[in-house]
Amino acid sequence: MTATTPPVSDRQRQVEDELVQTVLASFRETPDARLKELMQAMVRHLHAFIREVRLTETEWQQAIDFLTAAGHITTDRRQEFVLLSDVLGASMQTINVNHEATAGATEATVVGPFFVEDSPEIPIGGDMAAGAPGEPCWVEGTVTDTHGNPVPGARLEVWEADEDGLYDVQYADGHLAGRAHLFTDDEGDYTFWGLTPTPYPIPHDGPVGALLDKTGRSPLRASHLHFMVTAPGLRTLVTHIFVEGDSLLASDAVFGVKESLVRRFERQAPGTPTPDGRDLAGKSWSRVRFDIVLPVPHDR
Amino acid sequence: MTATTPPVSDRQRQVEDELVQTVLASFRETPDARLKELMQAMVRHLHAFIREVRLTETEWQQAIDFLTAAGHITTDRRQEFVLLSDVLGASMQTINVNHEATAGATEATVVGPFFVEDSPEIPIGGDMAAGAPGEPCWVEGTVTDTHGNPVPGARLEVWEADEDGLYDVQYADGHLAGRAHLFTDDEGDYTFWGLTPTPYPIPHDGPVGALLDKTGRSPLRASHLHFMVTAPGLRTLVTHIFVEGDSLLASDAVFGVKESLVRRFERQAPGTPTPDGRDLAGKSWSRVRFDIVLPVPHDR
Ligand SMILES: [Cu+2]
Ligand SMILES: [Fe+3]
Ligand SMILES: [Fe+3]
Repeated sequence: MTATTPPVSDRQRQVEDELVQTVLASFRETPDARLKELMQAMVRHLHAFIREVRLTETEWQQAIDFLTAAGHITTDRRQEFVLLSDVLGASMQTINVNHEATAGATEATVVGPFFVEDSPEIPIGGDMAAGAPGEPCWVEGTVTDTHGNPVPGARLEVWEADEDGLYDVQYADGHLAGRAHLFTDDEGDYTFWGLTPTPYPIPHDGPVGALLDKTGRSPLRASHLHFMVTAPGLRTLVTHIFVEGDSLLASDAVFGVKESLVRRFERQAPGTPTPDGRDLAGKSWSRVRFDIVLPVPHDR
Repeated sequence: MTATTPPVSDRQRQVEDELVQTVLASFRETPDARLKELMQAMVRHLHAFIREVRLTETEWQQAIDFLTAAGHITTDRRQEFVLLSDVLGASMQTINVNHEATAGATEATVVGPFFVEDSPEIPIGGDMAAGAPGEPCWVEGTVTDTHGNPVPGARLEVWEADEDGLYDVQYADGHLAGRAHLFTDDEGDYTFWGLTPTPYPIPHDGPVGALLDKTGRSPLRASHLHFMVTAPGLRTLVTHIFVEGDSLLASDAVFGVKESLVRRFERQAPGTPTPDGRDLAGKSWSRVRFDIVLPVPHDR
């Protein structure tokens, strides 16, 4: 950004400019050209920030204390720096930069902290909820590529929180539920049972939660269902679908919402017959269609 | 900084711009106006960086891993985030911004990680080395204010590494040496014995050291002697003096060197009589003069 530095004396501006030049020059001998570019760009933006806001020494110390606290709460199961990147929109901007909008392809969004390898496989039409509490949701769609060809055998990883706002991995007992993988059929079609997505807060008992609190922001994510779609020869897609009408769409804590990913979840009254004849014992359910288009590489 | 984003499609630019605007807007309700300013400026520079360098997802992950490792090595005695700020010149730029060059006043530099409260008091002419190994150095000077008045009773905290490149606090035994405080006399004069400064590396066995290594930079600091000068009604000064002719002046790992702080340390051959008659048992010694000028507040 253009630094809108408040008026300082010429002498002072020169002192500050010279320091920036000295720091940039210190990275001159970096053997890896890309690392050199990254470090020098980081130095330019970091110094521009400090100079623009005229950062006080107290504020500098608060930043150090914040990073220290984030480091100390981070474990194998809790990643506060990812949360920080998420709530600053840095994760989503990185996704944007790396998944340039391809005409006709489904848009990507953040992967989030709750994906795990080794999800159970379910057949087409199977139930990925696996006992997780919530309203059943029938999900169906077709996977095609940007040339319009169906993609048979595409692998879909799907995962979501239960109606208490928790992923299986947030329970201490190690059970797997609300996550599975399945494959599209010969026509590229898929169906499965999941749960109607409900909102949940990102972990907010640490420094990032305190930051959200101090800035008047909510830790809630808009309701969503995660997808990761892989198929040989096509680019992997990591995305979610969101729920039309969700009041949190405009204030998603991690800025993951894209308009093209919002879907109508059609609510079905208790007793409405299900597409596959599944007996829901009189519970209400919902259904949603999500057709997925994967970009053919170098196909712009 | 002006973002020199590589050519991207109009559609893509719009997607990225919109995200920046959404993140900025999320801080709209921050009750504290300064916090709001800081967060919004940080978001602008952070996103400008990501977009300018087209940060890859692998590089984003490396940044997360770096911060995680920095967090895990940080303890009460080791502050990797301060080191990171130091080697990026962010600490020094913050000092610059907060200690605007005042005509005639002694310039400030970084405090560094080795200052501790409760240093022993020494009389004028006393020895702050207290047994720390190194060549004795006679330090003398006068403290005045920017109006030219001597400052009697100014408190000088002085600290430095020994000739092995270590501060007392880096030894496990808890002894204090190479640090003391003393007060100027009625004329604002001071003298003490210390050590001729020698270079030392910043702690470089962690992620910051690895970064210096990968970028072809040295962890060595230019030789220096630390001062913190406080006097009632005058602005506190934190600074060092550096050694004229030191080959590290141009490559100080934390960018603390200012030309006005470089002093001639006059080397004295073994046997040269000392100013106070101290018997150095035939060792060589050095002497340096450092006159200190403290800014009178609102005196520009
Ligand atoms: Cu910038
Ligand atoms: Fe999620
Ligand atoms: Fe030092």
